[in-house]
Amino acid sequence: MLPKPSKSSHPTDKEGEMGLKVEQALHMVGGTGETSYATNSRIQEKAIHQTKSMLATAMEETYKALHPDQMVVVDLGCSSGPNTLLVLSHVLSVAAKLPTTMELQFFLNDLPGNDFNSLFLSLEGFKKRLEREIKGNLLVPYYVAGVAGSFYGRLFPRASVHLFYSSFCLMWLSQVPEGLKTENGGPLNKGNIYWTETSLVEVEKAYREQFQKDFSIFLRSRHTELNVGGRMVLVFLGRRNRTPGNGDLIHVYGLLGEALNSMVLEGIIPEEKVDTFNLPSYGASFEEVESVIRNEGLFDLDRAEIFDSSWDPFDDSKDDLYTISNHTRSGKNVANYIRAVVEPLIVHQFGAAILDDLFERYADRVSKHLLKEKVNYNILIFALKKKV
Amino acid sequence: MLPKPSKSSHPTDKEGEMGLKVEQALHMVGGTGETSYATNSRIQEKAIHQTKSMLATAMEETYKALHPDQMVVVDLGCSSGPNTLLVLSHVLSVAAKLPTTMELQFFLNDLPGNDFNSLFLSLEGFKKRLEREIKGNLLVPYYVAGVAGSFYGRLFPRASVHLFYSSFCLMWLSQVPEGLKTENGGPLNKGNIYWTETSLVEVEKAYREQFQKDFSIFLRSRHTELNVGGRMVLVFLGRRNRTPGNGDLIHVYGLLGEALNSMVLEGIIPEEKVDTFNLPSYGASFEEVESVIRNEGLFDLDRAEIFDSSWDPFDDSKDDLYTISNHTRSGKNVANYIRAVVEPLIVHQFGAAILDDLFERYADRVSKHLLKEKVNYNILIFALKKKV
Repeated sequence: MLPKPSKSSHPTDKEGEMGLKVEQALHMVGGTGETSYATNSRIQEKAIHQTKSMLATAMEETYKALHPDQMVVVDLGCSSGPNTLLVLSHVLSVAAKLPTTMELQFFLNDLPGNDFNSLFLSLEGFKKRLEREIKGNLLVPYYVAGVAGSFYGRLFPRASVHLFYSSFCLMWLSQVPEGLKTENGGPLNKGNIYWTETSLVEVEKAYREQFQKDFSIFLRSRHTELNVGGRMVLVFLGRRNRTPGNGDLIHVYGLLGEALNSMVLEGIIPEEKVDTFNLPSYGASFEEVESVIRNEGLFDLDRAEIFDSSWDPFDDSKDDLYTISNHTRSGKNVANYIRAVVEPLIVHQFGAAILDDLFERYADRVSKHLLKEKVNYNILIFALKKKV
Repeated sequence: MLPKPSKSSHPTDKEGEMGLKVEQALHMVGGTGETSYATNSRIQEKAIHQTKSMLATAMEETYKALHPDQMVVVDLGCSSGPNTLLVLSHVLSVAAKLPTTMELQFFLNDLPGNDFNSLFLSLEGFKKRLEREIKGNLLVPYYVAGVAGSFYGRLFPRASVHLFYSSFCLMWLSQVPEGLKTENGGPLNKGNIYWTETSLVEVEKAYREQFQKDFSIFLRSRHTELNVGGRMVLVFLGRRNRTPGNGDLIHVYGLLGEALNSMVLEGIIPEEKVDTFNLPSYGASFEEVESVIRNEGLFDLDRAEIFDSSWDPFDDSKDDLYTISNHTRSGKNVANYIRAVVEPLIVHQFGAAILDDLFERYADRVSKHLLKEKVNYNILIFALKKKV
């Protein structure tokens, strides 16, 4: 789950075990307040900048291979905030340097609950800014369209796309994993809201298998939709090794689970509400992702990278001291960031009354976690090329 | 203007003489009340049914000529109501009869102010209904995208579209006509809100020239965007002959102008508010449309038709008596219909307080007009083929 404030929530078509359509309950927190989406999109923004060169290379190579009259580029899970048009802007500045009369068709994809209206309304202002930035006739003619639907399935006609890009979306599952119930239908992941160190071994398996299933469908769908020579650049939260590190989602959600449990102990929320709450998200390891790609056999792995990004969105330091010396403030920043994403899911399961209390408890726990050492998300980037 | 409740408003990018962005002020009346869009979309619905066979022929011929792996079809000015997906539904039922493994990409276009969110959210229910209607494997795989922007300009890459369809949109101008001011900057069309029988000759000229300019840009843009062998089916309000008939927009808006003027006489609204109010719409004659098509020289005219549709949306009778014997009720129906479209423009210029009074006066005048004889809109249909 997690870092989705700006590059949107993109899970799940099916009624999950939480008894809700996750795609409806999961959305960014509006407004411009401390816990809003607008205030909490820095991690995604940094990731987009981090992947610029890989995206540029993918575009240049696709262009050299195909010399298309029109290049079709898709942003999967575009969301509708300040970062949404960053990718388009970058794609156009790369295109401006190609020796071409090519035109660009750019598709913005997200779930049907995404605010496409505000996105479409923002395009005029975007165009004006862009014309100032990319001078005169260098700006490639471009046409923008929106596509509403889950990328765990087909979205485009066969062989109609040249380049897919997706940022901060593929750690979302299409649904809460199957198999999180005992044979009697009881909760298998009691006391937890994600796979954590205290979960049964079957819980990790359920999450892993759901990811493998979803990512396989993703790869097959995109392979069909890509033109020969087409490419993908995929950026998402995961983990460096099989063994979860200190910054892994296990801890991000583990600490949130602990905060919820402390409220169970005090009788503020009922225990079974926590027992039946599981997040539709999975931070896969680099190796797991690679193995699904290899098993499907549809793509060559051009390049792959892992980079780290501090849990605290406002920490741009290179050293390891920042979050330690700022642990109280950083705990609050992380809590705001996570709240901006999970608030609607929490409200759906537990009601709105617990929000402030819960996220204070969470901030406190995060802050203590940060005191031990600076912790980072591991962000995986894969550049893939459709096999001939 | 006029019959846009359901197939939407599609004018104007520029700041018009009304001192507003027409595309922002012009939108359908929401809800489900008597004057709402939902209640007032029957004329458009009838027109869509009326053009079914021409659209089917255009699709079949395009398919035979090109045998595309994927057919790209665009609905220009799609709006977001009950009729919006009728066209897609019809296109898919035609495709189901073609001997093909073709896939379909369908673009829904309207101005950025259109409610694409509710349109995208309605697609899931549409899909389920459709799967019941078009049985099993006959349903061609289809993919829907939205494109926000004025069709008086480019919307798609070169040669990327096979078929354009547009219903009830091309009588909208891109702006209030230029040249509706005297040399001193005063209003040229005093007392009127559209070209009427009492307008100066320059007023008709201004409206006609704006239409010619807009329609030329429309044809050039679509020509560039169409594939070789591509086609268009265009449906819009116009008039049979140069001389306006009894059902022409001259009367539709003339009577509304009269109602406004009666309120000027009673001191309810200031005279200059009427003098400076001109609608960004023009009902072109068949001959005018043909002549722009011929002058541009980009399209062959495959087929053309004119059909009549009663002013009263609820009049399905074939005879001439219906609206005469029901003139009071019909007057009210017509007033509701027009109100559902022009209300936001009226409110912008005159304020909301006058609405009920104005449309009662209007209903009364319409009813008297209908007492003379049944009056019909003239609806023009043109099927065009891109010249090689």
